[in-house]
Amino acid sequence: MQRAWLAVAMLPLLAQGAVNTDALSVKPRTMADVIAASSSADWRSLDPQNTLYLELPSGRVVIELNPAFAPRHVANIKTLVHEHYFDATAIVRAQDNFVVQWSDPSNTRPLGSAQKTLDAEFSRSANDLAFTVLPDPDSYAPEVGFVDGFPAAREARTHLAWLVHCYSMVGVGRDNDVDSGNGTELYVVIGQAPRQLDRNVALVGRVVAGMEQLSTLKRGTAALGYYEKPEERTVINSLRLAADVPEAQRSHLEIMRTDTHTFADLVESRRNRRDEWYKVPAGRIDVCNVPLVVRPRP
Amino acid sequence: MQRAWLAVAMLPLLAQGAVNTDALSVKPRTMADVIAASSSADWRSLDPQNTLYLELPSGRVVIELNPAFAPRHVANIKTLVHEHYFDATAIVRAQDNFVVQWSDPSNTRPLGSAQKTLDAEFSRSANDLAFTVLPDPDSYAPEVGFVDGFPAAREARTHLAWLVHCYSMVGVGRDNDVDSGNGTELYVVIGQAPRQLDRNVALVGRVVAGMEQLSTLKRGTAALGYYEKPEERTVINSLRLAADVPEAQRSHLEIMRTDTHTFADLVESRRNRRDEWYKVPAGRIDVCNVPLVVRPRP
Repeated sequence: MQRAWLAVAMLPLLAQGAVNTDALSVKPRTMADVIAASSSADWRSLDPQNTLYLELPSGRVVIELNPAFAPRHVANIKTLVHEHYFDATAIVRAQDNFVVQWSDPSNTRPLGSAQKTLDAEFSRSANDLAFTVLPDPDSYAPEVGFVDGFPAAREARTHLAWLVHCYSMVGVGRDNDVDSGNGTELYVVIGQAPRQLDRNVALVGRVVAGMEQLSTLKRGTAALGYYEKPEERTVINSLRLAADVPEAQRSHLEIMRTDTHTFADLVESRRNRRDEWYKVPAGRIDVCNVPLVVRPRP
Repeated sequence: MQRAWLAVAMLPLLAQGAVNTDALSVKPRTMADVIAASSSADWRSLDPQNTLYLELPSGRVVIELNPAFAPRHVANIKTLVHEHYFDATAIVRAQDNFVVQWSDPSNTRPLGSAQKTLDAEFSRSANDLAFTVLPDPDSYAPEVGFVDGFPAAREARTHLAWLVHCYSMVGVGRDNDVDSGNGTELYVVIGQAPRQLDRNVALVGRVVAGMEQLSTLKRGTAALGYYEKPEERTVINSLRLAADVPEAQRSHLEIMRTDTHTFADLVESRRNRRDEWYKVPAGRIDVCNVPLVVRPRP
Protein backbone atom coordinates (compact mmCIF):
# COMPACT_ATOMS: atom_id res chain seq x y z
CA MET A 1 0.00 0.00 0.00
CA GLN A 2 2.71 2.44 0.96
CA ARG A 3 4.76 1.75 -2.13
CA ALA A 4 1.76 2.07 -4.40
CA TRP A 5 0.99 5.46 -2.90
CA LEU A 6 4.55 6.64 -3.28
CA ALA A 7 4.59 5.41 -6.84
CA VAL A 8 1.59 7.58 -7.62
CA ALA A 9 3.17 10.50 -5.81
CA MET A 10 6.46 10.16 -7.64
CA LEU A 11 5.21 9.89 -11.18
CA PRO A 12 4.90 13.60 -11.92
CA LEU A 13 8.22 14.25 -10.20
CA LEU A 14 9.94 11.74 -12.41
CA ALA A 15 8.33 13.26 -15.46
CA GLN A 16 9.91 16.55 -14.43
CA GLY A 17 13.37 15.14 -13.85
CA ALA A 18 14.12 14.27 -17.46
CA VAL A 19 17.73 13.17 -17.04
CA ASN A 20 18.06 11.78 -13.57
CA THR A 21 16.21 8.53 -12.96
CA ASP A 22 16.97 8.36 -9.24
CA ALA A 23 13.70 9.40 -7.60
CA LEU A 24 15.44 10.53 -4.45
CA SER A 25 17.47 13.15 -6.25
CA VAL A 26 14.58 14.57 -8.23
CA LYS A 27 14.03 18.20 -7.33
CA PRO A 28 11.69 18.22 -4.34
CA ARG A 29 8.59 20.34 -4.52
CA THR A 30 6.91 22.44 -1.88
CA MET A 31 3.15 22.69 -1.51
CA ALA A 32 3.27 26.07 -3.23
CA ASP A 33 5.09 24.44 -6.18
CA VAL A 34 2.44 21.71 -6.40
CA ILE A 35 -0.45 24.16 -6.32
CA ALA A 36 1.21 26.42 -8.87
CA ALA A 37 1.64 23.44 -11.21
CA SER A 38 -1.94 22.21 -10.80
CA SER A 39 -4.42 22.28 -13.67
CA SER A 40 -8.10 23.13 -13.62
CA ALA A 41 -8.89 19.40 -13.59
CA ASP A 42 -7.34 19.21 -10.12
CA TRP A 43 -10.09 21.40 -8.70
CA ARG A 44 -13.83 21.24 -8.33
CA SER A 45 -16.32 24.00 -7.59
CA LEU A 46 -18.51 23.90 -4.52
CA ASP A 47 -21.96 22.55 -5.34
CA PRO A 48 -24.54 25.19 -4.32
CA GLN A 49 -26.88 22.35 -3.35
CA ASN A 50 -24.39 21.18 -0.75
CA THR A 51 -22.99 24.47 0.49
CA LEU A 52 -24.18 26.41 3.53
CA TYR A 53 -23.56 30.05 4.38
CA LEU A 54 -23.52 30.71 8.10
CA GLU A 55 -23.96 34.47 8.36
CA LEU A 56 -22.53 35.90 11.57
CA PRO A 57 -22.19 39.54 12.61
CA SER A 58 -18.47 39.13 11.78
CA GLY A 59 -19.17 37.80 8.28
CA ARG A 60 -19.80 34.60 6.37
CA VAL A 61 -18.65 31.09 7.23
CA VAL A 62 -18.86 28.66 4.29
CA ILE A 63 -19.63 25.01 4.99
CA GLU A 64 -19.43 22.20 2.47
CA LEU A 65 -21.91 19.41 3.20
CA ASN A 66 -21.06 15.83 2.36
CA PRO A 67 -24.23 13.78 1.84
CA ALA A 68 -22.31 10.55 1.11
CA PHE A 69 -21.84 9.60 4.76
CA ALA A 70 -24.95 10.88 6.55
CA PRO A 71 -27.58 11.44 3.85
CA ARG A 72 -30.54 11.58 6.23
CA HIS A 73 -28.81 14.08 8.50
CA VAL A 74 -27.72 16.26 5.58
CA ALA A 75 -31.23 16.19 4.12
CA ASN A 76 -32.76 17.14 7.47
CA ILE A 77 -30.31 20.02 7.90
CA LYS A 78 -31.17 21.26 4.42
CA THR A 79 -34.87 21.13 5.31
CA LEU A 80 -34.23 23.09 8.52
CA VAL A 81 -32.12 25.60 6.63
CA HIS A 82 -34.63 25.97 3.83
CA GLU A 83 -37.32 26.76 6.37
CA HIS A 84 -35.04 29.28 8.15
CA TYR A 85 -34.87 27.29 11.38
CA PHE A 86 -31.48 28.70 12.36
CA ASP A 87 -32.09 32.38 11.67
CA ALA A 88 -31.65 34.34 14.92
CA THR A 89 -30.46 31.26 16.79
CA ALA A 90 -27.03 31.53 18.40
CA ILE A 91 -23.64 30.03 19.03
CA VAL A 92 -24.24 28.81 22.55
CA ARG A 93 -21.01 26.97 23.25
CA ALA A 94 -17.29 27.50 22.66
CA GLN A 95 -15.05 25.05 24.47
CA ASP A 96 -11.35 25.70 24.12
CA ASN A 97 -9.44 23.11 22.09
CA PHE A 98 -12.68 21.28 21.30
CA VAL A 99 -15.80 22.67 19.59
CA VAL A 100 -18.13 25.59 19.02
CA GLN A 101 -21.80 24.69 18.77
CA TRP A 102 -25.00 26.43 17.76
CA SER A 103 -28.64 25.75 18.34
CA ASP A 104 -31.91 27.37 19.34
CA PRO A 105 -31.14 28.61 22.88
CA SER A 106 -34.83 28.50 23.80
CA ASN A 107 -35.15 24.96 22.41
CA THR A 108 -38.76 25.77 21.51
CA ARG A 109 -38.69 26.30 17.75
CA PRO A 110 -40.99 24.08 15.75
CA LEU A 111 -39.16 21.68 13.44
CA GLY A 112 -41.47 22.37 10.50
CA SER A 113 -41.07 19.70 7.86
CA ALA A 114 -37.88 18.33 9.42
CA GLN A 115 -37.66 14.98 11.22
CA LYS A 116 -37.39 15.00 15.00
CA THR A 117 -35.28 11.83 15.19
CA LEU A 118 -32.96 10.23 12.67
CA ASP A 119 -31.41 6.82 12.65
CA ALA A 120 -27.69 6.89 13.35
CA GLU A 121 -25.36 7.51 10.40
CA PHE A 122 -22.00 7.23 12.11
CA SER A 123 -20.37 5.05 9.45
CA ARG A 124 -21.27 3.58 6.09
CA SER A 125 -20.25 0.81 3.74
CA ALA A 126 -16.75 1.26 2.35
CA ASN A 127 -17.59 -0.83 -0.69
CA ASP A 128 -17.74 1.19 -3.90
CA LEU A 129 -16.43 4.25 -2.09
CA ALA A 130 -13.50 5.92 -3.84
CA PHE A 131 -10.98 6.19 -1.03
CA THR A 132 -7.54 7.78 -1.38
CA VAL A 133 -5.40 6.00 1.21
CA LEU A 134 -2.80 7.79 3.29
CA PRO A 135 0.19 5.49 3.84
CA ASP A 136 1.00 6.57 7.38
CA PRO A 137 -0.04 5.01 10.67
CA ASP A 138 -2.99 6.51 12.50
CA SER A 139 -3.62 6.46 16.24
CA TYR A 140 -7.31 5.64 15.88
CA ALA A 141 -8.16 3.78 12.70
CA PRO A 142 -6.62 0.93 10.70
CA GLU A 143 -6.64 3.07 7.55
CA VAL A 144 -7.16 6.77 6.92
CA GLY A 145 -7.33 8.90 3.82
CA PHE A 146 -9.69 11.04 1.81
CA VAL A 147 -13.06 10.77 0.16
CA ASP A 148 -13.92 13.57 -2.21
CA GLY A 149 -12.05 16.21 -0.25
CA PHE A 150 -12.99 15.02 3.22
CA PRO A 151 -10.77 13.24 5.75
CA ALA A 152 -12.02 9.72 6.38
CA ALA A 153 -11.18 6.33 7.85
CA ARG A 154 -11.80 2.78 6.70
CA GLU A 155 -11.77 -0.66 8.27
CA ALA A 156 -11.27 -3.74 6.12
CA ARG A 157 -12.63 -6.12 8.75
CA THR A 158 -16.07 -4.52 8.85
CA HIS A 159 -16.06 -2.97 5.37
CA LEU A 160 -17.02 0.33 7.01
CA ALA A 161 -15.88 3.87 6.33
CA TRP A 162 -16.51 7.07 8.26
CA LEU A 163 -15.57 10.73 8.21
CA VAL A 164 -13.08 11.74 10.91
CA HIS A 165 -13.04 14.64 13.36
CA CYS A 166 -10.35 16.95 12.03
CA TYR A 167 -10.15 20.70 12.61
CA SER A 168 -13.10 22.48 10.95
CA MET A 169 -15.29 19.38 10.54
CA VAL A 170 -18.99 19.90 11.19
CA GLY A 171 -21.05 17.39 13.17
CA VAL A 172 -24.53 16.88 14.51
CA GLY A 173 -24.86 17.18 18.28
CA ARG A 174 -26.98 14.53 19.95
CA ASP A 175 -28.08 13.39 23.40
CA ASN A 176 -27.35 9.91 24.73
CA ASP A 177 -29.70 8.13 22.36
CA VAL A 178 -28.07 7.42 19.02
CA ASP A 179 -31.14 8.69 17.15
CA SER A 180 -31.42 11.91 19.14
CA GLY A 181 -29.40 14.08 16.74
CA ASN A 182 -31.60 15.72 14.15
CA GLY A 183 -29.40 18.56 12.92
CA THR A 184 -30.81 21.33 15.10
CA GLU A 185 -27.51 21.41 17.04
CA LEU A 186 -24.38 21.62 14.94
CA TYR A 187 -20.78 21.80 16.12
CA VAL A 188 -17.46 22.62 14.50
CA VAL A 189 -14.08 21.32 15.69
CA ILE A 190 -11.81 24.21 16.75
CA GLY A 191 -8.88 22.34 18.31
CA GLN A 192 -6.87 19.15 18.33
CA ALA A 193 -8.81 16.53 16.38
CA PRO A 194 -11.20 14.88 18.89
CA ARG A 195 -11.02 11.56 17.11
CA GLN A 196 -12.70 9.76 20.03
CA LEU A 197 -15.92 11.19 18.59
CA ASP A 198 -15.45 9.24 15.35
CA ARG A 199 -18.20 6.67 14.82
CA ASN A 200 -20.16 8.15 17.72
CA VAL A 201 -21.77 10.99 15.85
CA ALA A 202 -22.83 12.02 12.35
CA LEU A 203 -20.31 14.23 10.58
CA VAL A 204 -21.97 16.16 7.79
CA GLY A 205 -19.41 18.59 6.37
CA ARG A 206 -16.56 20.95 6.98
CA VAL A 207 -15.91 24.66 7.13
CA VAL A 208 -14.06 25.69 3.97
CA ALA A 209 -13.91 29.47 4.55
CA GLY A 210 -14.27 31.82 7.51
CA MET A 211 -13.06 29.32 10.10
CA GLU A 212 -11.30 32.03 12.12
CA GLN A 213 -14.67 33.58 12.91
CA LEU A 214 -15.48 30.47 14.92
CA SER A 215 -12.04 29.62 16.30
CA THR A 216 -11.55 33.07 17.84
CA LEU A 217 -14.88 33.23 19.66
CA LYS A 218 -14.68 33.96 23.36
CA ARG A 219 -14.77 30.65 25.21
CA GLY A 220 -17.76 29.89 27.42
CA THR A 221 -17.05 29.59 31.13
CA ALA A 222 -19.88 27.24 32.13
CA ALA A 223 -19.51 23.46 31.98
CA LEU A 224 -18.55 22.13 28.53
CA GLY A 225 -17.82 25.65 27.32
CA TYR A 226 -21.43 26.83 27.29
CA TYR A 227 -21.86 30.54 27.78
CA GLU A 228 -23.14 31.49 31.20
CA LYS A 229 -25.04 34.58 30.04
CA PRO A 230 -27.23 34.95 26.96
CA GLU A 231 -25.44 38.15 25.99
CA GLU A 232 -22.17 36.24 25.57
CA ARG A 233 -23.62 34.23 22.70
CA THR A 234 -23.00 35.10 19.07
CA VAL A 235 -26.20 35.65 17.13
CA ILE A 236 -26.62 33.74 13.89
CA ASN A 237 -28.10 36.15 11.40
CA SER A 238 -29.01 33.33 9.06
CA LEU A 239 -27.99 29.94 7.75
CA ARG A 240 -28.71 29.49 4.05
CA LEU A 241 -28.18 26.96 1.31
CA ALA A 242 -26.02 28.57 -1.39
CA ALA A 243 -28.59 27.49 -4.01
CA ASP A 244 -31.17 29.63 -2.20
CA VAL A 245 -28.92 32.70 -2.35
CA PRO A 246 -28.80 34.87 -5.49
CA GLU A 247 -25.82 34.00 -7.68
CA ALA A 248 -24.26 37.42 -7.21
CA GLN A 249 -24.18 36.95 -3.44
CA ARG A 250 -22.55 33.54 -3.46
CA SER A 251 -18.97 32.75 -2.45
CA HIS A 252 -17.28 31.20 -5.45
CA LEU A 253 -14.76 28.73 -4.17
CA GLU A 254 -12.88 25.75 -5.51
CA ILE A 255 -11.70 22.71 -3.58
CA MET A 256 -8.64 20.74 -4.56
CA ARG A 257 -9.69 17.22 -5.53
CA THR A 258 -8.20 14.47 -3.41
CA ASP A 259 -8.21 11.69 -6.02
CA THR A 260 -5.53 13.11 -8.32
CA HIS A 261 -1.78 12.84 -8.80
CA THR A 262 -1.57 16.50 -7.89
CA PHE A 263 -3.10 15.79 -4.51
CA ALA A 264 -0.71 12.88 -4.00
CA ASP A 265 2.12 15.30 -4.73
CA LEU A 266 0.70 17.80 -2.29
CA VAL A 267 0.50 15.19 0.47
CA GLU A 268 4.07 14.11 -0.26
CA SER A 269 5.20 17.76 -0.09
CA ARG A 270 3.77 17.86 3.42
CA ARG A 271 5.01 14.46 4.55
CA ASN A 272 8.52 15.57 3.73
CA ARG A 273 8.77 19.33 3.98
CA ARG A 274 11.40 20.67 1.64
CA ASP A 275 11.51 24.28 2.78
CA GLU A 276 15.02 25.18 3.83
CA TRP A 277 13.75 25.78 7.34
CA TYR A 278 13.06 22.07 7.92
CA LYS A 279 16.07 20.00 8.98
CA VAL A 280 14.33 16.73 9.84
CA PRO A 281 11.46 15.93 7.44
CA ALA A 282 8.78 14.03 9.31
CA GLY A 283 8.44 11.45 6.53
CA ARG A 284 4.86 10.92 7.68
CA ILE A 285 1.72 12.89 8.23
CA ASP A 286 -1.44 12.70 10.30
CA VAL A 287 -4.67 12.70 8.28
CA CYS A 288 -5.73 15.86 10.10
CA ASN A 289 -2.52 17.68 9.15
CA VAL A 290 -3.05 17.30 5.42
CA PRO A 291 -4.22 20.64 4.00
CA LEU A 292 -7.51 20.39 2.11
CA VAL A 293 -6.92 23.35 -0.10
CA VAL A 294 -9.60 25.91 -0.95
CA ARG A 295 -9.20 28.86 -3.28
CA PRO A 296 -11.40 31.49 -4.95
CA ARG A 297 -12.67 30.27 -8.29
CA PRO A 298 -10.42 31.83 -10.96
CA MET B 1 4.59 -3.12 25.89
CA GLN B 2 0.88 -2.73 25.43
CA ARG B 3 0.05 -5.49 27.87
CA ALA B 4 2.45 -4.10 30.45
CA TRP B 5 0.77 -0.73 30.19
CA LEU B 6 -2.68 -2.24 30.52
CA ALA B 7 -1.54 -4.26 33.50
CA VAL B 8 -0.53 -1.08 35.25
CA ALA B 9 -3.76 0.60 34.26
CA MET B 10 -5.94 -2.25 35.40
CA LEU B 11 -4.44 -2.83 38.83
CA PRO B 12 -6.44 -0.18 40.69
CA LEU B 13 -9.59 -1.20 38.82
CA LEU B 14 -9.18 -4.78 39.92
CA ALA B 15 -8.55 -3.66 43.47
CA GLN B 16 -11.89 -1.88 43.33
CA GLY B 17 -13.81 -4.84 41.92
CA ALA B 18 -13.58 -7.05 44.98
CA VAL B 19 -15.80 -9.89 43.82
CA ASN B 20 -15.52 -10.00 40.07
CA THR B 21 -12.14 -10.99 38.72
CA ASP B 22 -13.03 -10.43 35.08
CA ALA B 23 -11.30 -7.16 34.24
CA LEU B 24 -13.78 -6.42 31.49
CA SER B 25 -16.71 -6.35 33.88
CA VAL B 26 -15.00 -4.21 36.52
CA LYS B 27 -16.86 -0.95 36.93
CA PRO B 28 -15.35 1.42 34.39
CA ARG B 29 -14.19 4.80 35.58
CA THR B 30 -14.50 8.17 33.94
CA MET B 31 -11.76 10.79 34.10
CA ALA B 32 -13.76 12.60 36.78
CA ASP B 33 -13.82 9.39 38.85
CA VAL B 34 -10.07 8.98 38.48
CA ILE B 35 -9.34 12.55 39.50
CA ALA B 36 -11.75 12.35 42.44
CA ALA B 37 -9.97 9.21 43.65
CA SER B 38 -6.46 10.67 43.28
CA SER B 39 -4.26 11.36 46.29
CA SER B 40 -1.95 14.29 46.94
CA ALA B 41 0.98 12.11 45.82
CA ASP B 42 -0.49 12.10 42.31
CA TRP B 43 0.11 15.82 41.96
CA ARG B 44 3.08 18.16 41.99
CA SER B 45 3.21 21.92 42.46
CA LEU B 46 4.61 24.15 39.77
CA ASP B 47 8.22 25.09 40.52
CA PRO B 48 8.45 28.91 40.70
CA GLN B 49 11.93 28.63 39.16
CA ASN B 50 10.41 27.06 36.03
CA THR B 51 7.15 28.95 35.76
CA LEU B 52 6.53 32.03 33.65
CA TYR B 53 3.70 34.52 33.92
CA LEU B 54 2.82 36.14 30.61
CA GLU B 55 0.80 39.20 31.61
CA LEU B 56 -1.56 40.34 28.87
CA PRO B 57 -4.21 43.06 28.98
CA SER B 58 -6.73 40.20 29.21
CA GLY B 59 -4.98 38.56 32.16
CA ARG B 60 -2.29 36.06 33.04
CA VAL B 61 -1.09 33.10 30.99
CA VAL B 62 0.91 30.57 33.03
CA ILE B 63 3.69 28.64 31.30
CA GLU B 64 5.57 25.72 32.78
CA LEU B 65 9.14 25.49 31.49
CA ASN B 66 10.81 22.13 31.06
CA PRO B 67 14.59 22.47 31.26
CA ALA B 68 15.20 18.73 30.71
CA PHE B 69 15.02 18.90 26.92
CA ALA B 70 16.41 22.31 26.00
CA PRO B 71 18.42 23.50 29.01
CA ARG B 72 20.36 26.19 27.14
CA HIS B 73 17.20 27.62 25.61
CA VAL B 74 15.34 27.59 28.92
CA ALA B 75 18.27 29.25 30.67
CA ASN B 76 18.48 31.94 27.98
CA ILE B 77 14.74 32.62 28.21
CA LYS B 78 15.04 32.95 31.98
CA THR B 79 17.88 35.44 31.52
CA LEU B 80 15.82 37.45 29.04
CA VAL B 81 12.82 37.35 31.37
CA HIS B 82 14.87 38.29 34.41
CA GLU B 83 16.18 41.34 32.56
CA HIS B 84 12.64 42.30 31.43
CA TYR B 85 13.38 41.77 27.74
CA PHE B 86 9.75 40.97 26.88
CA ASP B 87 8.02 43.79 28.75
CA ALA B 88 6.10 45.93 26.25
CA THR B 89 6.88 43.57 23.38
CA ALA B 90 3.85 42.13 21.57
CA ILE B 91 2.10 39.16 20.12
CA VAL B 92 2.92 39.75 16.47
CA ARG B 93 1.46 36.64 14.87
CA ALA B 94 -1.68 34.52 15.17
CA GLN B 95 -2.09 31.94 12.43
CA ASP B 96 -5.32 30.00 12.54
CA ASN B 97 -4.96 26.32 13.43
CA PHE B 98 -1.22 26.78 13.97
CA VAL B 99 0.53 29.17 16.38
CA VAL B 100 0.58 32.53 18.10
CA GLN B 101 4.01 34.09 18.47
CA TRP B 102 5.52 37.00 20.33
CA SER B 103 8.71 38.97 19.96
CA ASP B 104 10.13 42.48 19.91
CA PRO B 105 8.38 44.02 16.88
CA SER B 106 11.19 46.52 16.41
CA ASN B 107 13.79 43.75 16.62
CA THR B 108 16.18 46.26 18.16
CA ARG B 109 16.22 45.42 21.86
CA PRO B 110 19.60 44.62 23.30
CA LEU B 111 19.94 41.05 24.51
CA GLY B 112 21.63 42.05 27.75
CA SER B 113 23.29 39.05 29.37
CA ALA B 114 21.49 36.58 27.09
CA GLN B 115 23.20 34.61 24.34
CA LYS B 116 22.54 35.65 20.74
CA THR B 117 22.86 32.13 19.33
CA LEU B 118 22.33 28.75 20.93
CA ASP B 119 23.26 25.31 19.70
CA ALA B 120 20.25 23.28 18.63
CA GLU B 121 18.40 21.36 21.34
CA PHE B 122 15.77 19.60 19.26
CA SER B 123 16.15 16.19 20.91
CA ARG B 124 18.16 14.63 23.73
CA SER B 125 19.36 11.28 24.94
CA ALA B 126 16.52 9.00 25.99
CA ASN B 127 18.81 7.07 28.28
CA ASP B 128 18.05 7.59 31.96
CA LEU B 129 14.92 9.56 31.07
CA ALA B 130 11.79 8.39 32.93
CA PHE B 131 9.36 7.90 30.07
CA THR B 132 5.75 6.77 30.50
CA VAL B 133 4.92 4.98 27.24
CA LEU B 134 1.54 5.30 25.56
CA PRO B 135 0.60 1.96 23.97
CA ASP B 136 -1.11 3.35 20.88
CA PRO B 137 0.32 3.92 17.41
CA ASP B 138 1.45 7.40 16.50
CA SER B 139 1.55 8.92 13.03
CA TYR B 140 4.95 10.52 13.53
CA ALA B 141 7.14 8.72 16.05
CA PRO B 142 7.93 5.09 16.86
CA GLU B 143 6.98 5.64 20.51
CA VAL B 144 5.15 8.43 22.32
CA GLY B 145 4.31 9.09 25.93
CA PHE B 146 5.02 11.45 28.77
CA VAL B 147 8.00 12.83 30.61
CA ASP B 148 7.21 14.64 33.84
CA GLY B 149 3.88 15.98 32.60
CA PHE B 150 4.96 16.80 29.06
CA PRO B 151 4.05 14.94 25.87
CA ALA B 152 7.14 13.39 24.31
CA ALA B 153 8.42 10.89 21.78
CA ARG B 154 11.24 8.38 21.81
CA GLU B 155 13.18 6.39 19.24
CA ALA B 156 14.94 3.18 20.25
CA ARG B 157 17.18 3.15 17.18
CA THR B 158 18.84 6.47 17.98
CA HIS B 159 18.27 6.48 21.75
CA LEU B 160 16.77 9.95 21.34
CA ALA B 161 13.77 11.58 22.97
CA TRP B 162 12.05 14.87 22.23
CA LEU B 163 9.06 16.91 23.32
CA VAL B 164 6.19 16.92 20.81
CA HIS B 165 4.08 19.75 19.40
CA CYS B 166 0.70 19.31 21.07
CA TYR B 167 -1.83 22.06 21.67
CA SER B 168 -0.46 24.64 24.15
CA MET B 169 3.18 23.65 23.80
CA VAL B 170 5.68 26.53 23.78
CA GLY B 171 8.59 26.62 21.36
CA VAL B 172 11.47 28.84 20.32
CA GLY B 173 11.11 30.45 16.90
CA ARG B 174 14.19 30.41 14.74
CA ASP B 175 15.37 31.35 11.25
CA ASN B 176 16.81 28.81 8.83
CA ASP B 177 20.03 28.26 10.77
CA VAL B 178 19.58 25.69 13.50
CA ASP B 179 21.38 27.91 16.02
CA SER B 180 19.35 31.02 15.18
CA GLY B 181 16.73 30.57 17.89
CA ASN B 182 17.71 32.31 21.11
CA GLY B 183 14.37 32.59 22.92
CA THR B 184 13.50 36.14 21.89
CA GLU B 185 10.67 34.75 19.71
CA LEU B 186 8.36 32.30 21.40
CA TYR B 187 5.33 30.56 19.94
CA VAL B 188 2.42 28.58 21.34
CA VAL B 189 0.47 25.91 19.44
CA ILE B 190 -3.20 26.90 19.09
CA GLY B 191 -4.48 24.22 16.67
CA GLN B 192 -4.07 20.69 15.42
CA ALA B 193 -0.72 19.41 16.67
CA PRO B 194 1.87 20.51 14.05
CA ARG B 195 4.00 17.45 14.65
CA GLN B 196 6.08 18.12 11.54
CA LEU B 197 7.86 20.70 13.71
CA ASP B 198 9.07 17.99 16.11
CA ARG B 199 12.87 17.69 16.11
CA ASN B 200 13.13 20.88 14.07
CA VAL B 201 12.83 23.33 16.88
CA ALA B 202 13.41 23.63 20.63
CA LEU B 203 10.29 23.11 22.72
CA VAL B 204 10.68 24.65 26.14
CA GLY B 205 7.37 24.35 27.95
CA ARG B 206 3.62 24.46 27.80
CA VAL B 207 0.78 26.76 28.75
CA VAL B 208 -0.92 25.37 31.85
CA ALA B 209 -3.46 28.16 32.47
CA GLY B 210 -4.97 30.99 30.46
CA MET B 211 -4.64 29.26 27.10
CA GLU B 212 -7.93 30.75 25.84
CA GLN B 213 -6.37 34.21 25.97
CA LEU B 214 -4.04 33.10 23.19
CA SER B 215 -6.33 30.80 21.22
CA THR B 216 -9.02 33.45 20.81
CA LEU B 217 -6.74 36.20 19.53
CA LYS B 218 -7.77 37.77 16.25
CA ARG B 219 -5.86 36.02 13.47
CA GLY B 220 -3.33 38.02 11.50
CA THR B 221 -4.11 38.54 7.82
CA ALA B 222 -0.57 38.93 6.45
CA ALA B 223 1.51 35.92 5.35
CA LEU B 224 1.98 33.30 8.08
CA GLY B 225 -0.64 34.99 10.24
CA TYR B 226 1.43 38.06 11.06
CA TYR B 227 -0.60 41.16 11.82
CA GLU B 228 -0.59 43.69 9.04
CA LYS B 229 -0.91 46.72 11.31
CA PRO B 230 0.92 47.38 14.57
CA GLU B 231 -2.36 48.27 16.31
CA GLU B 232 -3.64 44.73 15.73
CA ARG B 233 -0.93 43.30 17.97
CA THR B 234 -1.56 42.40 21.59
CA VAL B 235 0.81 44.17 23.95
CA ILE B 236 2.68 42.05 26.45
CA ASN B 237 2.62 43.92 29.73
CA SER B 238 5.34 41.74 31.14
CA LEU B 239 6.80 38.23 31.21
CA ARG B 240 8.05 37.21 34.65
CA LEU B 241 9.54 34.20 36.35
CA ALA B 242 7.17 33.17 39.16
CA ALA B 243 10.11 33.17 41.57
CA ASP B 244 10.59 36.88 40.85
CA VAL B 245 6.95 37.63 41.70
CA PRO B 246 5.86 38.14 45.32
CA GLU B 247 4.35 34.97 46.78
CA ALA B 248 0.94 36.61 47.23
CA GLN B 249 0.75 37.39 43.50
CA ARG B 250 1.61 33.92 42.27
CA SER B 251 -0.78 31.46 40.66
CA HIS B 252 -0.78 28.35 42.83
CA LEU B 253 -1.33 25.42 40.54
CA GLU B 254 -0.78 21.69 40.66
CA ILE B 255 -0.05 19.38 37.76
CA MET B 256 -1.08 15.75 37.71
CA ARG B 257 2.03 13.58 37.63
CA THR B 258 2.34 11.35 34.59
CA ASP B 259 4.38 8.54 36.17
CA THR B 260 1.69 7.17 38.48
CA HIS B 261 -1.00 4.49 38.43
CA THR B 262 -3.54 7.28 38.70
CA PHE B 263 -2.30 8.79 35.45
CA ALA B 264 -2.40 5.37 33.77
CA ASP B 265 -6.02 5.11 34.92
CA LEU B 266 -6.74 8.55 33.57
CA VAL B 267 -5.29 7.68 30.18
CA GLU B 268 -7.31 4.46 30.10
CA SER B 269 -10.47 6.42 30.97
CA ARG B 270 -9.82 8.51 27.86
CA ARG B 271 -8.79 5.63 25.60
CA ASN B 272 -12.12 3.99 26.31
CA ARG B 273 -14.66 6.62 27.21
CA ARG B 274 -17.26 5.18 29.54
CA ASP B 275 -19.71 8.07 29.60
CA GLU B 276 -23.13 6.86 28.51
CA TRP B 277 -22.90 9.19 25.51
CA TYR B 278 -20.13 7.13 23.88
CA LYS B 279 -21.30 4.12 21.90
CA VAL B 280 -18.01 3.10 20.26
CA PRO B 281 -15.03 3.56 22.60
CA ALA B 282 -11.97 4.45 20.54
CA GLY B 283 -9.79 1.93 22.35
CA ARG B 284 -6.83 4.15 21.53
CA ILE B 285 -5.68 7.70 21.99
CA ASP B 286 -3.34 10.17 20.35
CA VAL B 287 -0.63 11.53 22.63
CA CYS B 288 -1.97 15.05 22.02
CA ASN B 289 -5.49 14.07 23.13
CA VAL B 290 -4.41 12.94 26.58
CA PRO B 291 -5.41 15.62 29.10
CA LEU B 292 -2.50 16.89 31.16
CA VAL B 293 -4.54 17.96 34.12
CA VAL B 294 -3.95 21.18 36.04
CA ARG B 295 -5.84 22.35 39.12
CA PRO B 296 -5.58 25.06 41.76
CA ARG B 297 -3.44 23.92 44.67
CA PRO B 298 -5.87 22.79 47.40
